[in-house]
Amino acid sequence: MLTPDVGEGSLPNRFRTLWDEISPVGRDAGSGGYLRYALTGPELELRDWFRAQADRRGMPVVEDGNGNLFAVWGDPAAGDAVLTGSHFDSVPHGGAYDGPLGIVSAFLAVDELRAAGVTPTRPVLVAAFVEEEGARFGVPCLGSRLLTGAIAPERAAELRDAAGVSFAEALGDRPAGARPDLLGRLGAFVELHVEQGRALVDVDAPVAVASAIWPHGRWRFDVTGEGNHAGTTRMADRRDPMLTYAFTVLAANKEARLRGAHATVGRVAVEPNATNAIPSRVTGWLDARAAEPETLTGLVDAVHAKVAERARRDGTEVTLTEESATPLVAFDGGLARRLATLLDAPVLPTGAGHDAGVLAAHLPTAMLFVRNPTGVSHSPAETAADEDCAAGVRALARVLTELACR
Amino acid sequence: MLTPDVGEGSLPNRFRTLWDEISPVGRDAGSGGYLRYALTGPELELRDWFRAQADRRGMPVVEDGNGNLFAVWGDPAAGDAVLTGSHFDSVPHGGAYDGPLGIVSAFLAVDELRAAGVTPTRPVLVAAFVEEEGARFGVPCLGSRLLTGAIAPERAAELRDAAGVSFAEALGDRPAGARPDLLGRLGAFVELHVEQGRALVDVDAPVAVASAIWPHGRWRFDVTGEGNHAGTTRMADRRDPMLTYAFTVLAANKEARLRGAHATVGRVAVEPNATNAIPSRVTGWLDARAAEPETLTGLVDAVHAKVAERARRDGTEVTLTEESATPLVAFDGGLARRLATLLDAPVLPTGAGHDAGVLAAHLPTAMLFVRNPTGVSHSPAETAADEDCAAGVRALARVLTELACR
Repeated sequence: MLTPDVGEGSLPNRFRTLWDEISPVGRDAGSGGYLRYALTGPELELRDWFRAQADRRGMPVVEDGNGNLFAVWGDPAAGDAVLTGSHFDSVPHGGAYDGPLGIVSAFLAVDELRAAGVTPTRPVLVAAFVEEEGARFGVPCLGSRLLTGAIAPERAAELRDAAGVSFAEALGDRPAGARPDLLGRLGAFVELHVEQGRALVDVDAPVAVASAIWPHGRWRFDVTGEGNHAGTTRMADRRDPMLTYAFTVLAANKEARLRGAHATVGRVAVEPNATNAIPSRVTGWLDARAAEPETLTGLVDAVHAKVAERARRDGTEVTLTEESATPLVAFDGGLARRLATLLDAPVLPTGAGHDAGVLAAHLPTAMLFVRNPTGVSHSPAETAADEDCAAGVRALARVLTELACR
Repeated sequence: MLTPDVGEGSLPNRFRTLWDEISPVGRDAGSGGYLRYALTGPELELRDWFRAQADRRGMPVVEDGNGNLFAVWGDPAAGDAVLTGSHFDSVPHGGAYDGPLGIVSAFLAVDELRAAGVTPTRPVLVAAFVEEEGARFGVPCLGSRLLTGAIAPERAAELRDAAGVSFAEALGDRPAGARPDLLGRLGAFVELHVEQGRALVDVDAPVAVASAIWPHGRWRFDVTGEGNHAGTTRMADRRDPMLTYAFTVLAANKEARLRGAHATVGRVAVEPNATNAIPSRVTGWLDARAAEPETLTGLVDAVHAKVAERARRDGTEVTLTEESATPLVAFDGGLARRLATLLDAPVLPTGAGHDAGVLAAHLPTAMLFVRNPTGVSHSPAETAADEDCAAGVRALARVLTELACR
């Protein structure tokens, strides 16, 4: 316990004060959700806020030429640094906590260490990664992928948003790409994030340590049939791709439930998408995730087989295309056990991708999750109690003390 | 047989010559379908072609102030006129025949009568109705509805296309609305149209007479659930409206097949329509049609009941809203029987709406259908053989002789 639990200067109150500085930025008055797309007005405002917070704490800000920001406490040239932080950008009408909670908590954790008179023996860096959600340029974790060389800067430069603006244009320069010089000076990364499910509600704990990110991927299924008149075409004469699409939605749901996996069809495109026309083509996107790679493969294979059979009955044709696949990310097991013991916190897997999942291939990486009473995420209903956020800050401060001061 | 069946000056060849004049207008090189939206460039070009055809035949063109054109053979002020014709506008990427076949056939039927030396005792009018498909301004049969007073001109004036252009702006003036003076001079309407199903293929006949237009309507179903993260939300915690939507698509198909009715879900809108988000809302549009009003009502009620039950299981909420409903149109039974006997043609109902369905409430109305070997309509695959189109012209010429010359 470094700072008081209650009262004016208590950690929950100081969390709320800092949080309220950014709460209005990018909030849509209609939905109550956030439109904080990478390198657009609201996100640029949050990046200015980041620099001001770093400045207030005497932490110089290093940029990596890829859009990622790092506020440094200690010698920027020293090695074995401990990195924390997260991202500012949101999905369309997303929640307030997904991303920003990890950055606000990082600055408050630095304050906790300083209030306790702790002087790290290793540098402590607070990161703001760019375009984690992929909501603007289509590639999630774009900033951490560039930093680690997981995506070529030439390809990233040419990614375009819905208005045709390229990432290089938004950034104001061509991205620098892999920075082994920066990456080589990092000794560990700990990302704090709001939980995106209800596991912590069930176990009645404010904070958890992550064990792994489930393997996951996106599959596009294109169903083609025969466009025709909705009024005059006999049912027996139809080759309606919407039927095959609808069957796929229900089959994916059923197969995922049978396996304890997750499957979602949240996106669809229809040609011509007219009330009085049997469509000629329906395209759906299947998002599937599971704890083990073989469960995920079994799920997608089962859906594919059932849909192919249904397409034969519907007189349609269906093709399944893997658009992206992310293998299982197992966070450093020793580090996770060490932090779980330190914090007396449960260890949980997650189905969501994060910058921590990208960095885990390059350095010991861990994640902390803060309880979300609704379990809802990527939605205005996402939330967290100030007390739980304060518990998250305290846990992160203990982790930084453990990793950077011993 | 008024003109030869084969050879250079044969009716099939003269049909093809006239048809080729308009075939390129508004054709999309990619799909091969037509983009002939009302009062846009291609349709205006077809209207100019209409005036030229009328002029070539010495038929003055009367405009009704609603966008409808009438080429007149005989005394425009005389009563008991026989009207034929159809429309030029298309659905997006629609076929070549839906609409224009009725206008081209009308001019060729006039030629047939003249070649045979027939002089009508009643005026013969060829019509080009505006915005029959409703593809630009959203209301099908807009021109015939205005002419007959079935829609208020104030409302029609303010209908807007996707770019925000109003019907009044496209027309260049506020629509005139009901024209009882014109309508009162009409004694009958016969619309020739390509068949939009395969019934004439099955009975092996080139031409049919319509008995009725099935009652039909559009119902919007809005399904609301809870937007959430596709990766992290447990299946048991979801309230996914896409599941309820998919179930509705399959239920509508099944219930229609059980009843010998038609049901189609060809249009859908999803919020936020993102691959990694469980949707918060899915809206679908049900197009339903049946031979009898009670069958249609039973179909929609059954779908509604099944979907409400499914929504309870999915944890979603669903509302069904009737967006439009068109009652059964029974064409003049005496006229249909008379024409069927005259032409030795089968009598068939149709599931599609037409300007003839609007005018049938005001004067004796009939329709002729020309065989469509694919049965496909509202699609580039819609077609008709030149010989069958010639048979349609001959049938229409006999009908005009029967109605206008006795």
